[in-house]
Amino acid sequence: MHRERFYTLSASCPDQVGIIARVTGFISGLGGWVLESSFHADALDGRYFMRIEIKAASIPFALAEFRERFRPIADSLQMDWKISDSAVKKRLVVLVSKQEHCLYDLLARWQSKELDIEIPCVISNHDTFRGFVEWHGIPFHHLPVTNECKPAAYAEIRRIFEEVRGDTLVLARYMQILSPTLCAAYPGRIINIHHSFLPSFVGAKPYHQAYQRGVKLIGATCHYVTEELDQGPIIEQDVIRIDHSDSVEDMVRYGKDIEKTVLARGLRYHLEDRVLVHGNKTVVFR
Amino acid sequence: MHRERFYTLSASCPDQVGIIARVTGFISGLGGWVLESSFHADALDGRYFMRIEIKAASIPFALAEFRERFRPIADSLQMDWKISDSAVKKRLVVLVSKQEHCLYDLLARWQSKELDIEIPCVISNHDTFRGFVEWHGIPFHHLPVTNECKPAAYAEIRRIFEEVRGDTLVLARYMQILSPTLCAAYPGRIINIHHSFLPSFVGAKPYHQAYQRGVKLIGATCHYVTEELDQGPIIEQDVIRIDHSDSVEDMVRYGKDIEKTVLARGLRYHLEDRVLVHGNKTVVFR
Amino acid sequence: MHRERFYTLSASCPDQVGIIARVTGFISGLGGWVLESSFHADALDGRYFMRIEIKAASIPFALAEFRERFRPIADSLQMDWKISDSAVKKRLVVLVSKQEHCLYDLLARWQSKELDIEIPCVISNHDTFRGFVEWHGIPFHHLPVTNECKPAAYAEIRRIFEEVRGDTLVLARYMQILSPTLCAAYPGRIINIHHSFLPSFVGAKPYHQAYQRGVKLIGATCHYVTEELDQGPIIEQDVIRIDHSDSVEDMVRYGKDIEKTVLARGLRYHLEDRVLVHGNKTVVFR
Amino acid sequence: MHRERFYTLSASCPDQVGIIARVTGFISGLGGWVLESSFHADALDGRYFMRIEIKAASIPFALAEFRERFRPIADSLQMDWKISDSAVKKRLVVLVSKQEHCLYDLLARWQSKELDIEIPCVISNHDTFRGFVEWHGIPFHHLPVTNECKPAAYAEIRRIFEEVRGDTLVLARYMQILSPTLCAAYPGRIINIHHSFLPSFVGAKPYHQAYQRGVKLIGATCHYVTEELDQGPIIEQDVIRIDHSDSVEDMVRYGKDIEKTVLARGLRYHLEDRVLVHGNKTVVFR
Repeated sequence: MHRERFYTLSASCPDQVGIIARVTGFISGLGGWVLESSFHADALDGRYFMRIEIKAASIPFALAEFRERFRPIADSLQMDWKISDSAVKKRLVVLVSKQEHCLYDLLARWQSKELDIEIPCVISNHDTFRGFVEWHGIPFHHLPVTNECKPAAYAEIRRIFEEVRGDTLVLARYMQILSPTLCAAYPGRIINIHHSFLPSFVGAKPYHQAYQRGVKLIGATCHYVTEELDQGPIIEQDVIRIDHSDSVEDMVRYGKDIEKTVLARGLRYHLEDRVLVHGNKTVVFR
Repeated sequence: MHRERFYTLSASCPDQVGIIARVTGFISGLGGWVLESSFHADALDGRYFMRIEIKAASIPFALAEFRERFRPIADSLQMDWKISDSAVKKRLVVLVSKQEHCLYDLLARWQSKELDIEIPCVISNHDTFRGFVEWHGIPFHHLPVTNECKPAAYAEIRRIFEEVRGDTLVLARYMQILSPTLCAAYPGRIINIHHSFLPSFVGAKPYHQAYQRGVKLIGATCHYVTEELDQGPIIEQDVIRIDHSDSVEDMVRYGKDIEKTVLARGLRYHLEDRVLVHGNKTVVFR
Repeated sequence: MHRERFYTLSASCPDQVGIIARVTGFISGLGGWVLESSFHADALDGRYFMRIEIKAASIPFALAEFRERFRPIADSLQMDWKISDSAVKKRLVVLVSKQEHCLYDLLARWQSKELDIEIPCVISNHDTFRGFVEWHGIPFHHLPVTNECKPAAYAEIRRIFEEVRGDTLVLARYMQILSPTLCAAYPGRIINIHHSFLPSFVGAKPYHQAYQRGVKLIGATCHYVTEELDQGPIIEQDVIRIDHSDSVEDMVRYGKDIEKTVLARGLRYHLEDRVLVHGNKTVVFR
Repeated sequence: MHRERFYTLSASCPDQVGIIARVTGFISGLGGWVLESSFHADALDGRYFMRIEIKAASIPFALAEFRERFRPIADSLQMDWKISDSAVKKRLVVLVSKQEHCLYDLLARWQSKELDIEIPCVISNHDTFRGFVEWHGIPFHHLPVTNECKPAAYAEIRRIFEEVRGDTLVLARYMQILSPTLCAAYPGRIINIHHSFLPSFVGAKPYHQAYQRGVKLIGATCHYVTEELDQGPIIEQDVIRIDHSDSVEDMVRYGKDIEKTVLARGLRYHLEDRVLVHGNKTVVFR
């Protein structure tokens, strides 16, 4: 946890000799102070991943110029890369339905600045949490989703997300399946919390499925949303122990604790640029 | 999780042959339907513990008479016992300071009826959460605690607790040490969440202590408050993994997740009469 | 953990008023001392489960007569039941292939009497562990399994199991799929450890499947073997955290720790008659 | 998990701009291929830690010359450093008493080459495991430790350790307290598994202490041995859940599972040069 402003370089490229040396040589050549750095080589497919935090005050010019100077190195390494600035808060748009736990949890973290982000608005297919959200000074949009109005509703979500310049869209137990078009529009920017330990119990009513199968642990999975339901890259997962005495209702209740925690962890990794998508998997530099 | 009204008998007594038979024989003699039952014999000191849930509709008279009829059996077994009624909501008075996580968590569980209780008021030594609490329709008392006014403040807490007929007082990260008098007044009725895995790191700044010692897991402990600081009977504990890269601030942040979960679990056990105090330990029938 | 000899009654029956009272009334009527007791009502299908440990010395006659006296009660309650005697050691036949971890773990627990059982023999489709097993004084049978000789091999396993009067057959990472006939012959008596968190990753090479999917936790499942591969009633499960830096080989290595622990726990529950099969699920009275 | 031979550089030095660049620039200047790399800056005291695995075949000369060429860089950065060679197996001397679990576990990992080490001998104050150890082809020394012969026994342990050119001495539930002299002779090379979650329950009979205090989780701690009992730098810890029904004997039994796992994990980190001691704490690059 850094209090000073810093830049975060996150990147991946084909593996070869000397990547770290070139990148960190460039940074130290400018006098750049590295606060935290993580590297990973995927041996199977020869791809290299990195994340470096650099003290902003140690770079003798503005971020735009820092980026420009880095570009030739990135190009020569065939990098996918970005550099973000801790002084620019990420903008998180929250989608919610009628369950309270993830919403309360996110707003608690937001109000205490544990999550140092902007929440430009909350969108829901129910009006349940209008008062609660608005009390926090956050705009609330009630967008009902029926079979007839689905395309219009998803278009409206997209319009709002663009209008408020959202960076990330989080489905905080939003009980509607986004349209493939919407999913495809924001790859790596829509995050869902699924209430099972994927790939077990895809789709509807996972706790009922878990009850039927008689598993001894239940879980939750935070993942990027893709066009295929519950199949996107997994960011974070966790489980909790249950036993024969637990009904589906008990599992729902236990599950809430694990859902909100897993979502918050996954979201933090994402917002801090700790997650690099790699095919249908993720590299997470915790 | 039962939806129907039920009575909960919780009791302990010296162990002897035939306790379960006598108690359950009495219940079934009335036509009483047992929903859930748990028994424990402490082999070392020969004490017996039980908790039985009985469908209220299966008992052919009111709770008061049920209690009266049970009394002779309880007396003959030298029992400490009580029978509670699921239709009578427990009344929880919440003490809080400036940290949000346990308060948000408890109110989320309360508003969704996951915790089916009354919260007659929240008391704080800071005014930080007045708006948040009052928005929920719950009275908020700001009671500053300075060295000069401590006795008066604790007297006032006690007065309020009595006035609202509180059953349980929960310290949801309340950063003041209650007076011995107050602690002694409500044995087994004041619950605290301590931000360490007790008995490690008693007292102030446990995360700093944990950082200094270089532990690889940090934890939280939900316990009954007694006159001796952080020494009361433990109800529930849990831990979370950290590593060398985590600062004290990171530990504080991780710790919040474990604190609120452990408090909620411990509190639920207590409110459902699942916790029987046994000397300085607890029997918890989960 | 009891040192004194005890009897264990484990049973299930249709739920009705008064089951505990009748059963414990019978026991206490004989002067029987209950050491431990657990009860569970399955609310959905109205079935009742119980497990009671009774001090053998408190029953004034032999086990055979105890059983006979209990029979009318059991009959009137339409019980499936059995009473086992802690003085009669269960006989565990171990099937193993070329992986060492579960075998070493089981023999360590056996030699220290942590598992107070007999191991009349170990059977393997490889000769790898002959010396190790025989050094412990346990007979070792090398039974190769090829496509041609499978039926003969499984018939021989069955013959040996009968000959040594085995109670339970444990597949301690035995890398062959038992024939449906063999599975059907011993319902609730063959225990397997599967190296995934079922129902995820059924069948072959679960760690490769987990690697492909990019899960953040891997697990193991101890279950009863039925005719359908990896679909039997689950006794115990657990998981361990991995991350992007772990190869399939790392996952295999981590997995071994969780496999042997989960197998040992599940096996102990089974051997202590703590597991009651209920359709395709289990009640486990820990 | 690498199959190819590699060198591991592990080092710490005062933090300054450009450390990674200089070290990795040196490596890539030789054509060195980095397989895995980890870095950590301790912000509080300005110390920097690193661990780098380099493919041996990518370095165009022998390890001795590699070390010599690196020396000037290390000197200029005031580094504590070493470079180890995966082709040179570490030599682990095991101390054991009468409990089997850690010994069986270590020998299982050794025989399957999961731990790719040499075990030149096992030393015990009891003769219990002579046959078991010798069956594995490992020499066994029975060294009784009584109050009279302690100094001689510890001198003999030291003599044997030197004679077999041991790298690391592991106390695999060795129930004797090593002399301060012996502890001081091998800083960072003697590893113990303590059967509690330190700093709770230092010293003798930690499970009895845990039982008395009524904790809800018990743990184990793998740490370097220093002259002060149970106070050395912690390498790894873990916990397991217990409840009121568990006796001290149950806790001992549960504890064995966590002890052997924690010891194996900590030992692996140590043997792979993943642990850098930092005052009384450790940096562990997992």
